Amino acid sequence: MRRYKLILEFDGRAFVGWQRQENGPSVQGALEAAALAFCGVETTAHAAGRTDAGVHAIAMPAHLDLPGDHPAETVRDALNFYLRPQPIAILAAEEAPRDFHARFSATARHYRYRIVNRRAPLALEEGRAWHIGSPLDAAAMNEAGHHLVGKHDFSTFRAAHCQSASPVKTLTSLRVQREKDVVSIDASAPSFLHHQVRSIAGTLVQIGLARWRAADVKAALEARDRSACGPVAPAHGLYFVKADYAKA
Amino acid sequence: MRRYKLILEFDGRAFVGWQRQENGPSVQGALEAAALAFCGVETTAHAAGRTDAGVHAIAMPAHLDLPGDHPAETVRDALNFYLRPQPIAILAAEEAPRDFHARFSATARHYRYRIVNRRAPLALEEGRAWHIGSPLDAAAMNEAGHHLVGKHDFSTFRAAHCQSASPVKTLTSLRVQREKDVVSIDASAPSFLHHQVRSIAGTLVQIGLARWRAADVKAALEARDRSACGPVAPAHGLYFVKADYAKA
Repeated sequence: MRRYKLILEFDGRAFVGWQRQENGPSVQGALEAAALAFCGVETTAHAAGRTDAGVHAIAMPAHLDLPGDHPAETVRDALNFYLRPQPIAILAAEEAPRDFHARFSATARHYRYRIVNRRAPLALEEGRAWHIGSPLDAAAMNEAGHHLVGKHDFSTFRAAHCQSASPVKTLTSLRVQREKDVVSIDASAPSFLHHQVRSIAGTLVQIGLARWRAADVKAALEARDRSACGPVAPAHGLYFVKADYAKA
Repeated sequence: MRRYKLILEFDGRAFVGWQRQENGPSVQGALEAAALAFCGVETTAHAAGRTDAGVHAIAMPAHLDLPGDHPAETVRDALNFYLRPQPIAILAAEEAPRDFHARFSATARHYRYRIVNRRAPLALEEGRAWHIGSPLDAAAMNEAGHHLVGKHDFSTFRAAHCQSASPVKTLTSLRVQREKDVVSIDASAPSFLHHQVRSIAGTLVQIGLARWRAADVKAALEARDRSACGPVAPAHGLYFVKADYAKA
């Protein structure tokens, strides 16, 4: 058996999320089915982030073990072949050490939340960004986000069904910037709570719309109470950008 | 009656093209139906470019006449309302002089052809770019394109059913550039022949793959013969970027 590290791109609209579930096609299920078609064995795929339904990936690391001694390029091409026509692409594959784990070895995760901020609805970006028709003050959102950077109890920004042992997480960076009509929220952390980025994005939008003041974000964080959170931003604006791993 | 200039964004996958046709939904038909729903009158919409099925628009100018004295913002919002849920968005609307014509007043048209050049298939960009798995030499494509700039008989790069009176057109600029995996071909001209940009893109790809040399592009142009053209690039990589108009 060899372990392979993969980098995946996928369009989250087609899936119930990363994790195998009874209620529809998952990225994990599609990848494991492709591995079964390729090698004839059941295997379990692990990803750096267990994204929700509708959440996209630009470069999601994953790993799986396969029998034989296939070159990594063959694994990449064969999995891409068997994944067709599903919107999942293996961008890269490489052999990984036996103790490499896409989820547990990751030292940092990077997400981007994309908002198209314009009066007109979305044609080319439908399902690929959150459309907000009223003007957003991206600078105010960026400023308010400073309150969330660092090590905090993020209970306010955590899904009710989050399985993390602790609500305490360290948000390494949070940056909001506008480029023409697109407002991007970039968030990095060693790890995130379930719905944390979407909860933060939804809360910062309240700032951007001037419905909340920056002090309200601080108060929401300190409340450590889910009900203090702004509306959770929709899944289809969220992208898993990449994960980092310590160099061997 | 007032004349309105509109700027449209649309996803070409949903349409048989700009022009109203019997065989499926068109952008023109959708826009005219929205105008009918809004004002209760039949009107004819005209666009700067009559794009083919699958071709996208980032900012396509169009115009139409409507009864009453609606502010341009109302026209924009009402048309967007009635266009739902089709992937067409009116980005902007403004009142235009009676002699403004989106097609005949345009002094220049700008197209972009997008290629994703990587081994892996497309997940996020499926239907939004041409996927080419073998490496393309974008610099060679750019260099070869110089042969096509200027006033020429473009019969080689013209669809059999093109309705233009003359095959002589002036290609103002043609630039090929790579940014990471994306190779973009930007073409500008006062006007284009039918399939001209896709024919040029397909031919330049032959250069990029080193199947043709730059001299072959020159020879193809000088042949003035459709059969000398490289394979026509698929519609879904093409974007109508914008059109220019003389200032009043």
